[in-house]
Amino acid sequence: MPLVKIDMIKGRSNEEIKEILDISYEVMLEAFEAPKGDRYQIVTQHEPYEMQIQDTGLGIERTDEIIVFSLTTRYRTEEQKKLFYKKLVTRLHESIGIRVEDIMINLVTNSDADWSFFSGNAQFLNGELK
Amino acid sequence: MPLVKIDMIKGRSNEEIKEILDISYEVMLEAFEAPKGDRYQIVTQHEPYEMQIQDTGLGIERTDEIIVFSLTTRYRTEEQKKLFYKKLVTRLHESIGIRVEDIMINLVTNSDADWSFFSGNAQFLNGELK
Amino acid sequence: MPLVKIDMIKGRSNEEIKEILDISYEVMLEAFEAPKGDRYQIVTQHEPYEMQIQDTGLGIERTDEIIVFSLTTRYRTEEQKKLFYKKLVTRLHESIGIRVEDIMINLVTNSDADWSFFSGNAQFLNGELK
Repeated sequence: MPLVKIDMIKGRSNEEIKEILDISYEVMLEAFEAPKGDRYQIVTQHEPYEMQIQDTGLGIERTDEIIVFSLTTRYRTEEQKKLFYKKLVTRLHESIGIRVEDIMINLVTNSDADWSFFSGNAQFLNGELK
Repeated sequence: MPLVKIDMIKGRSNEEIKEILDISYEVMLEAFEAPKGDRYQIVTQHEPYEMQIQDTGLGIERTDEIIVFSLTTRYRTEEQKKLFYKKLVTRLHESIGIRVEDIMINLVTNSDADWSFFSGNAQFLNGELK
Repeated sequence: MPLVKIDMIKGRSNEEIKEILDISYEVMLEAFEAPKGDRYQIVTQHEPYEMQIQDTGLGIERTDEIIVFSLTTRYRTEEQKKLFYKKLVTRLHESIGIRVEDIMINLVTNSDADWSFFSGNAQFLNGELK
């Protein structure tokens, strides 16, 4: 599950985007203890003027490297969320040099009945997934 | 209401996309007993590398036909959701041959105060809609 | 915070899009009493056939000027939401002539633990933001 929608500004190579997705996926498995194959990622690339991402006065600088991760997920503990944020930013920075100031993450929570992965079944309700 | 955001990989004709939207709309009316004209659909098309949709180890195969439906809706019962999933997948498969393994659906619930359809009014609060 | 995703049909100039974003941001500050710099906006532009936005039988007409604002936000009162809708539509209409029938808004609520603005910290939890 979590469904991860990722918005970024155009200009990255396909290879770099692939790396971002691979790292996000690995971090998800670790932080959320998600099962292998729990990978649902959708990237949308934008013109620079289409993304206006500031900082609520926190005093950091954003660049065109900005990435916004928007997750839809079932219940996660506060600890899991904090772990996910920290690992994701650390890994993206250490592995491919993305500035930690250019990574923003937000989450929305839904419930078991809100997912159908295929065939029109609700896999969290019928026991196929738990 | 439900607002339906639909992500797919580029390659479908406009006509096929129109059919997908028409079918989704009809199924919405049936499963949610929504009123006529309750149609709010937004499609975003992606490059193949921008959508990484796996299967949480369920053993199915995804193809570039993959479609992800993300709904924002007021409260719906579990039965309505299950009915919607099943009808949507069945109809898309029977009418235009989309593989049932290539249709994923997720929902997020909000409330009456969370909708303004036009004119800056909250139509579920002022009685224009119920 | 609120994260504002904005879907529209292609055809507007960059300048007009910039004006829409500027106005949305100003209205956000006023209606939600958000701090300066609380600006998180992402625009996606679509082909006309990709956006099917009707009216639930309310008897209005939509055009290709249609804009859909989808907000993710922490808790807001009903009064704040209504104020935001009304101000946003009024201002977009009066300043740049967008028809009030072409502006649709929807909101989803999340919580303090659901935001990391940068560095992988949860700024609403660690006290950097309140």
